[in-house]
Amino acid sequence: MTWQLHPQLLADCYELMTHQEIHILLKKEKIIPWVILVPKTAQRDLCDLEAESFAHLLGQMKKISQYLKQKFSADKINVAEIGNVVPQMHVHILARKQQDACWPGVVWGKTLDAATYSTEEVTMMQQEMIQLFGEVV
Amino acid sequence: MTWQLHPQLLADCYELMTHQEIHILLKKEKIIPWVILVPKTAQRDLCDLEAESFAHLLGQMKKISQYLKQKFSADKINVAEIGNVVPQMHVHILARKQQDACWPGVVWGKTLDAATYSTEEVTMMQQEMIQLFGEVV
Repeated sequence: MTWQLHPQLLADCYELMTHQEIHILLKKEKIIPWVILVPKTAQRDLCDLEAESFAHLLGQMKKISQYLKQKFSADKINVAEIGNVVPQMHVHILARKQQDACWPGVVWGKTLDAATYSTEEVTMMQQEMIQLFGEVV
Repeated sequence: MTWQLHPQLLADCYELMTHQEIHILLKKEKIIPWVILVPKTAQRDLCDLEAESFAHLLGQMKKISQYLKQKFSADKINVAEIGNVVPQMHVHILARKQQDACWPGVVWGKTLDAATYSTEEVTMMQQEMIQLFGEVV
């Protein structure tokens, strides 16, 4: 079966970039900057990835964390791989602020307001991803 | 200032092992097997660790995830580095089952029953950590 992005992730996010078989998504939740990495794999758990894929995914996670921390002056970065509801492996990276709507709680299981980004804001982040990772490969 | 394990982590967990400056703790929440890794660092975010420390911590996370998955026949491993409440960097690794008390939700922010392990169970897991990582270094 051909691998495809899970429809729930596709519905909830903008696509920023795909870099070396990892989809970089931006959640439609503007109040808390939230990137989701989706590696092209049928595995469900991080620990089942082969060494190279594991290191590659976590290297991207680190880069995106640094980017979000700086761009949004985050007080704390939250990272997680959960996947209890949407089974396709995906890694959450969030820029948290002490004033945000969920602080100090976690975002999962909360109903947020799904405030969307403007087209210009999404385009800007797409361009910043190209700066971060180079051209799409 | 000398680095010390955060008192909240110490109160909530059993100490299983310390391996290469990473404390391996077991949360006193028997209903959901839950290991917490605490690297000896003053950094708060994973992305601020230097390359070697980052790779080392995530390598341990991978090994413990595989161990928990097998030992508890987990349906899903959840991993997260949050740190909004307890600021000392710590990585959660959970063996989740579709029948557990929080499924499919996350465990953070929930009140669980804090059921404790027996001394024998903790000793067994301490011995299994030594098998996994070798003698304490």
